[in-house]
Amino acid sequence: MNGIAYGVGIGPGDPELLTLKAVRMIKECDVVAVAGKDPKESFAYRIASAAVPEIADKELVGVYMPMVKDREKLREEHEKGAKLLESYLEQGKNIAYITLGDPTIYCTFSYLQHILERDGFEVKLISGITSFCAAAARLNISLAEWDEELHIVPAVHKEEHTLDYDGNYVLMKSASHMSEVKEILRESGLTVNAVENCGCDNEKVYRGIDEIPDDAGYYSLIVAKRGRS
Amino acid sequence: MNGIAYGVGIGPGDPELLTLKAVRMIKECDVVAVAGKDPKESFAYRIASAAVPEIADKELVGVYMPMVKDREKLREEHEKGAKLLESYLEQGKNIAYITLGDPTIYCTFSYLQHILERDGFEVKLISGITSFCAAAARLNISLAEWDEELHIVPAVHKEEHTLDYDGNYVLMKSASHMSEVKEILRESGLTVNAVENCGCDNEKVYRGIDEIPDDAGYYSLIVAKRGRS
Repeated sequence: MNGIAYGVGIGPGDPELLTLKAVRMIKECDVVAVAGKDPKESFAYRIASAAVPEIADKELVGVYMPMVKDREKLREEHEKGAKLLESYLEQGKNIAYITLGDPTIYCTFSYLQHILERDGFEVKLISGITSFCAAAARLNISLAEWDEELHIVPAVHKEEHTLDYDGNYVLMKSASHMSEVKEILRESGLTVNAVENCGCDNEKVYRGIDEIPDDAGYYSLIVAKRGRS
Repeated sequence: MNGIAYGVGIGPGDPELLTLKAVRMIKECDVVAVAGKDPKESFAYRIASAAVPEIADKELVGVYMPMVKDREKLREEHEKGAKLLESYLEQGKNIAYITLGDPTIYCTFSYLQHILERDGFEVKLISGITSFCAAAARLNISLAEWDEELHIVPAVHKEEHTLDYDGNYVLMKSASHMSEVKEILRESGLTVNAVENCGCDNEKVYRGIDEIPDDAGYYSLIVAKRGRS
């Protein structure tokens, strides 16, 4: 019987933000898979190993997930990655594919999941703490109250965004175009806070648009709200 | 020295979805507070006690949080609730206020937090698994991939919603007007899945609009996506 591939969210960076279920799944699975050619060098592995030292005894598999925008190239690499996982599933081994944040929110495991399911393999998802919930907790502010809408928006720079939906925003993956994003935020009149590397040693908190450096890193997340905080 | 009030997210219902940090905070705090007149009868207490049996030895405090729409009545009750928590904080006791889901997403603790902070008390938030991440995991689908936007919308029925933002939707708190919501969903052309009582014994999964009963319960959550799943 084939094994099951579990997409296991391990949260945003603090090892204590793994769930009890994520810890159990990592302990129980035969194989731990992670994006990256060298699994032990990955951020996800370091977080998970701090919470689950038993991970060191697992069969480790690195899946190459390229950070490119060429859709055809991505598709080819995802096919290769899925085939690699399938080779373990066909041996009846269960896989915990560990992934930052939550496996349903901008998670590259989703691409592998589509292929695994197309090929008749069983996939299950184990929820993790999202980066935006962790950032809001760090900022000590709510993301949405009462009947406010909440809009999670990746890559604001891509079009002529004006941030004019009702409600509050989380802006993700904005780092590569931060100066344009800051201009869009200034025009919006929204109240802005941001966190870089939330929960990690090099974490930084920015209160207000002007505090956010134009060269903020990839793991920067902006919360923009209609209210005062 | 005054104690600290921790808003501790305990996730959507499955006791295994508490984080390691939530478990530790509950164990370490002197007082466990929860919405409801009788703490032990609350859903949040039952979930937390399944994951942290030591909760039985804590000083338990029930905070009355009315489910009414009268803003003035709410404000009065929130003031009373905050004052009750403050009476423990002033004794130097730390409080773990346990709350379903995540404390930054439509969480009634936010109202208490505003008052506690106004009164000079320290509040910290501990992230929890959101209901919408858990529902998507149960449905085995992603909420957002690549550059898709994700819109979290409470109470769709309140206005003439047309669900015409780009990207995907999570509809929360729709149960009281489900037949109207289903009509809006039909007009949107979105692909719809829903979960009722996610992670609990009476969980139900609905694939497609027609499967969702008009009398679905309060803990029903709808995922509506532009793609095919």
